[in-house]
Amino acid sequence: MKIAVDAMGGDYAPAVVIEGAREASGKFGVQIILVGREDAILKELRGALPKNFQIQPASEVISMDEPPAVSIRKKRDSSICVGLDLVKENEADAFVSAGNTGAVVCAGSLGLGLLPGIERPGIGLIIPTLKEPALIIDVGANIDPKPLHLLQYGIMADAYLRHILGRADITVGLLNIGEEETKGTDFVKETYQLLEKSRLNFIGNIEAKDVFRGKCDVIVCDGFVGNVALKISEGVGEVVAEFLRRELSQDLFAKLGIFFVKTSLHRFSKILDYSEYGGALLLGVDGIVIIGHGRSSSHAIMNAIRVAKEEVERKVNERIVEAISSSSSSVIT
Amino acid sequence: MKIAVDAMGGDYAPAVVIEGAREASGKFGVQIILVGREDAILKELRGALPKNFQIQPASEVISMDEPPAVSIRKKRDSSICVGLDLVKENEADAFVSAGNTGAVVCAGSLGLGLLPGIERPGIGLIIPTLKEPALIIDVGANIDPKPLHLLQYGIMADAYLRHILGRADITVGLLNIGEEETKGTDFVKETYQLLEKSRLNFIGNIEAKDVFRGKCDVIVCDGFVGNVALKISEGVGEVVAEFLRRELSQDLFAKLGIFFVKTSLHRFSKILDYSEYGGALLLGVDGIVIIGHGRSSSHAIMNAIRVAKEEVERKVNERIVEAISSSSSSVIT
Repeated sequence: MKIAVDAMGGDYAPAVVIEGAREASGKFGVQIILVGREDAILKELRGALPKNFQIQPASEVISMDEPPAVSIRKKRDSSICVGLDLVKENEADAFVSAGNTGAVVCAGSLGLGLLPGIERPGIGLIIPTLKEPALIIDVGANIDPKPLHLLQYGIMADAYLRHILGRADITVGLLNIGEEETKGTDFVKETYQLLEKSRLNFIGNIEAKDVFRGKCDVIVCDGFVGNVALKISEGVGEVVAEFLRRELSQDLFAKLGIFFVKTSLHRFSKILDYSEYGGALLLGVDGIVIIGHGRSSSHAIMNAIRVAKEEVERKVNERIVEAISSSSSSVIT
Repeated sequence: MKIAVDAMGGDYAPAVVIEGAREASGKFGVQIILVGREDAILKELRGALPKNFQIQPASEVISMDEPPAVSIRKKRDSSICVGLDLVKENEADAFVSAGNTGAVVCAGSLGLGLLPGIERPGIGLIIPTLKEPALIIDVGANIDPKPLHLLQYGIMADAYLRHILGRADITVGLLNIGEEETKGTDFVKETYQLLEKSRLNFIGNIEAKDVFRGKCDVIVCDGFVGNVALKISEGVGEVVAEFLRRELSQDLFAKLGIFFVKTSLHRFSKILDYSEYGGALLLGVDGIVIIGHGRSSSHAIMNAIRVAKEEVERKVNERIVEAISSSSSSVIT
């Protein structure tokens, strides 16, 4: 199995990306194609290409804040475009990038095309909850979707949890400002009706406060709301940690206490650490694409490659196509 | 000064509401009009009305999950409708309720009317940040707003921080999925243009991850997004606390450590405690209305009454009307 990895993507590229790819290759036995500027990659590797590694040169880099549509049109030789081409040409089984999310979504949709029956791609993210991890979709691929797109997100996420993570009895909730069927905008109400008529195990609306409590396995929402929900959660986590750090560093007793609670705090931070969950899933495109957080550590890159490998092995896209085609006859008509 | 308090509102009414009102009356010297079922209130007071307390009987109760528009039409003698009537008739200076938020917004807008020039009310909430507390508006009054409504939210929030909290150099940000001007839906982009042309100190888009970092003083957003952002933040806080509790209770060393960090954790939880900030502000209606969290403690009720008192003393609505009228000539044309 060959995984193309965007060596130039993410805030700490290429060093951290290459380190993560090394770990993944050693641990999971996958072949790695590092995509990016050859000189930068070789410099990082100190001239010696590890076993199971190849380089696919790409002369351009799309930075984190470039406008996606423009940048992928102008920079055809960017690591993102070249990496996705490898997947399209079947020279790689999957592509992993911690680069510009919008550019990966754009280039992925245009370059690889969408799966049969899928109208829009969605970004899914596995998040920790008080129960089992949940999958929230969409967290930013499609900020102005139609109700049908959200139905399809639900179907894709259900297939993902079922076939890739081996979960059963998947429940699906619609993110809304209240639980009652009558709540929300017209868009949300129409989506509710579609989900209710579908074959999914739709439990109705879910309020944002219940997302991390693990009230359902799949949370569907539009990409704007999902992106805000995700990023504000990250922000809360950081701020809570910072407040705690400030408080605990003020006090001599607290400093002593920290010594005792260290192991617990470490285990705790691992539960909440997105890097454990291995990046976001670009679902709906005809190819396997994993999008890492811009601030991905090598550990996060390694986990993103692990997720890519699992998706390849368990044929995620075949499962999604089956689910969509078997649902479409009963639902969309 | 007389503050009408919804004795039946909130998950722990009437006991906790009355306790909070007692504390507030003692501390701030305000007169309290308890609105609700006389028998329930008198039972709670053990028959003895405290000094500075009155009861305004209201025979009906709107429960937390009743549909707002229907319930306020059907239950004209509910504590929410009767309490707002007291404000309308100038028999109370402000109304505080921890009851059904939608019903308070609906009854407040219809019963009191909107301030001159204001097109829609908004719910503002003071939130803790790494810097000074910020004001986020709207967190759920208006889930399908127009760009002009968000501009008016910005103007109202700016006036609030300036005149009620005595803050200077207020910065305003628009909640969006990225910082660049070109990001977001058409609605958000139009709102951006209006804010930029206004007299507000508009710093542009703010990403959700920066809200709690205190990147700006006022965050404007539509009520759907604001509600999700707020509630997911609450959820994250709760889940983090629960994970931490689980971790720390597993481990003997950790239990010992807790003893040392207790004071710090207590100070820390006070910073994050919404009840310290005294409820949400229903801005734009022609009267002073504070909406407490459904799970308000007596401490939260006391603080909500404090905030109501400050708004009355500092004439929040006069300040808002001035700000709107002086801005409208330069902006809306």
